[in-house]
Amino acid sequence: MKNLLTTTELTISEINEILEDAQYFLDGGTWSLKKNLFVANLFFENSTRTKCSFEVAERRLGIDTIPFEVSTSSVQKGETLYDTVKTLEAIGANAVIIRHSEDRYFDELEGKTDVAIINAGDGCGHHPTQSLLDLLTIKQEFGGFNGLKVAIIGDIRHSRVARSNADTLVRLGAEVVFSGPEEWFDDEILENGVRFEDIDTAVATSDVVMLLRIQHERHEVKNDRTAEEYHQAFGLTVERERTMKPGSIIMHPAPINRNVEIADCLVECERSRIFKQMTNGVYVRMAVLKRALEQSERGGKDVNTYKEWAVAN
Amino acid sequence: MKNLLTTTELTISEINEILEDAQYFLDGGTWSLKKNLFVANLFFENSTRTKCSFEVAERRLGIDTIPFEVSTSSVQKGETLYDTVKTLEAIGANAVIIRHSEDRYFDELEGKTDVAIINAGDGCGHHPTQSLLDLLTIKQEFGGFNGLKVAIIGDIRHSRVARSNADTLVRLGAEVVFSGPEEWFDDEILENGVRFEDIDTAVATSDVVMLLRIQHERHEVKNDRTAEEYHQAFGLTVERERTMKPGSIIMHPAPINRNVEIADCLVECERSRIFKQMTNGVYVRMAVLKRALEQSERGGKDVNTYKEWAVAN
Amino acid sequence: MKNLLTTTELTISEINEILEDAQYFLDGGTWSLKKNLFVANLFFENSTRTKCSFEVAERRLGIDTIPFEVSTSSVQKGETLYDTVKTLEAIGANAVIIRHSEDRYFDELEGKTDVAIINAGDGCGHHPTQSLLDLLTIKQEFGGFNGLKVAIIGDIRHSRVARSNADTLVRLGAEVVFSGPEEWFDDEILENGVRFEDIDTAVATSDVVMLLRIQHERHEVKNDRTAEEYHQAFGLTVERERTMKPGSIIMHPAPINRNVEIADCLVECERSRIFKQMTNGVYVRMAVLKRALEQSERGGKDVNTYKEWAVAN
Repeated sequence: MKNLLTTTELTISEINEILEDAQYFLDGGTWSLKKNLFVANLFFENSTRTKCSFEVAERRLGIDTIPFEVSTSSVQKGETLYDTVKTLEAIGANAVIIRHSEDRYFDELEGKTDVAIINAGDGCGHHPTQSLLDLLTIKQEFGGFNGLKVAIIGDIRHSRVARSNADTLVRLGAEVVFSGPEEWFDDEILENGVRFEDIDTAVATSDVVMLLRIQHERHEVKNDRTAEEYHQAFGLTVERERTMKPGSIIMHPAPINRNVEIADCLVECERSRIFKQMTNGVYVRMAVLKRALEQSERGGKDVNTYKEWAVAN
Repeated sequence: MKNLLTTTELTISEINEILEDAQYFLDGGTWSLKKNLFVANLFFENSTRTKCSFEVAERRLGIDTIPFEVSTSSVQKGETLYDTVKTLEAIGANAVIIRHSEDRYFDELEGKTDVAIINAGDGCGHHPTQSLLDLLTIKQEFGGFNGLKVAIIGDIRHSRVARSNADTLVRLGAEVVFSGPEEWFDDEILENGVRFEDIDTAVATSDVVMLLRIQHERHEVKNDRTAEEYHQAFGLTVERERTMKPGSIIMHPAPINRNVEIADCLVECERSRIFKQMTNGVYVRMAVLKRALEQSERGGKDVNTYKEWAVAN
Repeated sequence: MKNLLTTTELTISEINEILEDAQYFLDGGTWSLKKNLFVANLFFENSTRTKCSFEVAERRLGIDTIPFEVSTSSVQKGETLYDTVKTLEAIGANAVIIRHSEDRYFDELEGKTDVAIINAGDGCGHHPTQSLLDLLTIKQEFGGFNGLKVAIIGDIRHSRVARSNADTLVRLGAEVVFSGPEEWFDDEILENGVRFEDIDTAVATSDVVMLLRIQHERHEVKNDRTAEEYHQAFGLTVERERTMKPGSIIMHPAPINRNVEIADCLVECERSRIFKQMTNGVYVRMAVLKRALEQSERGGKDVNTYKEWAVAN
């Protein structure tokens, strides 16, 4: 069993292995299970893309899914995340996919369960499968990362992927700049050689223009800009798109606030890889599930196995 | 990929083909998939019969279902129906089944997605699989529609099926009358040769007495009749049932308000086809899913296929 | 089709048969279906363990599950439990698993449907699959029940399992004592040879110390004890655990209020069988599903079969 908690913890060679497996699945490759394996998707926050994408990945691999809805579970009786995961382990889960509002919720689980933990988003922290699908999308387009310039634009402070994407892209040889409202940046964000760039320069000079969603649900105070003012100041307007380099692409993790981060008519334009990112997400998650479950599949250590609990004498 | 949006748009020969396929499945016929196909059931309004019926139909056909709950999806972050459907398309859905409170919600989707759209009820508009299962139930009983008299009784104005059922039955050669509280009718409703008839005549002279559910949740003003008053004035009482023709049957789309539209003891009486309608619903939905997915199954055009998105130069 | 409503109604030989089948499945035994069988899990109250456990059991047996969420069903339009179950029967369910807040909700269903009813908890009444998994856990440990002493400690009045477990254990030859706050007991509870014992004696002299969850959600008035006061007076403290007999075990149906019914550090101690109970739950539920569905599987009477409804003449 192999957890996937953050991309920061993955080595370059681990990242490459996941991307290669994802491409293998995308090209029609298969990985067949020899026995029933079970996963549960624990989404403590709303999701369409990530949750549905994991559900499709599980079915494509022939994994059985244990349906779990937070709102009708014993979480409502006060059961902790730890006890919920241990319960799922006891009834046969081989892996759990978790999205939770708390940063690093997984710290209380690591090393205390035999079930593999796959992080599907923790608070404002990490979202490794999103990072990996972003990397796959870039790699498909440009063949690699060396020498590419990537602009990450928008709500960096509340973004799960901005900082871990930046860190990973820099490790892979790309140049990364952040852009957006300056009050959303601070010195802590700008490190590891990532620098701030004004939006017009960033859009005009990058190979990848990666927009981030304004996370209204995480902003404690209402922003005093209107959507239209944000769009003109920091969004990918039709005018800015015209300045983009030949061969450069547009990315966004979605859901999209149309006409805020990006002009409505650009969402499905030729440069956009927004829906391709979603398609890639299924194959990346298949690769991540395979990595998490290979040990259980080989039977080396099956967390479903009935355990003897010795009696104290 | 073939949408199913309204019965009005179906030709007589398309209707007959669906009914024949449904009867084929009901008689034990099979249709086996050669590859994984995926559907998602998007129910923006509550449902037991229609949703569970589609779920059973999908499993009987070996289709994989992508679990989707509106209340825990990105719809809660403001994502539109269009973006939700495009997302599901991107992650591999071959068809989506949609129930939505908005009349003709599908107009914004038609022609803009490769995923098949199956309408499971739009506002006060259409509910084609309900109409088709009603037709199958009548056809099983009488062999056809020519010369039959069908009375549709109750809340016509808010009914998804009343008008499209009437239209289709008239096209198929039946005579249709509407009955119920007169203030719920207007000239717009009474067209295509459908006329109003008083309840006692309608019940006593029809081959099919089709009752409609009082849709409390769609009545903007509280009705000033009590349930008992409605039952006596416009319901199928025990006394009215005694006047029904030999061989005539009772139908209701359910859920039933017992002792309002129909006397409690008549729900499971010998004339009642109410539960048979539900059983037929599974087979009609199998036929509709087959029709929607045949193209994907043959591989003629598989919406799961990875798409190339050209880069603008 | 065979209902499972209460353990009280099961004979000793029926109990033994279920426990043997459960152990058979736990040891890797299989039971393969020859055709699609369908069940629906109707949980009108929150649950993690019981619901997920049934879901895993269904998948291990190859049974198809019809997804059903009370909150998005026609129950919200006022549909009764009876009509919901009859609907599921009509669309092909072979069994329904029901948890409901009303004591003996199943009385209105028994004998009126061909679908098998498996009780997953009724109000403060019964929870037969929990009782059976408790029995399996004890039997695995001690080989049988004769001469064992079992202490059931805590919120007996609101417990679904306390009284039916006591009754069954006494029938199987064990001695049972109840312990906990005296105001939670009355003469009606203490019958069939079960007596009250103070907590310190009960813990020190029993082979099985079975703790019950404080069901805050069923206490009409707030208890005037703090959690810590309850723990010291009636919980399994570290000090009390030290007095337990060699070879004796700790059980709890969970979810656990840590440091209330049991000290946090004892939940996963060597004596604890709490997570083993959960693992056993899956296999007990497989046995119960097999028992409920054997008739449908053999085709003796398949509730999925299309029914003829005679027309009255």
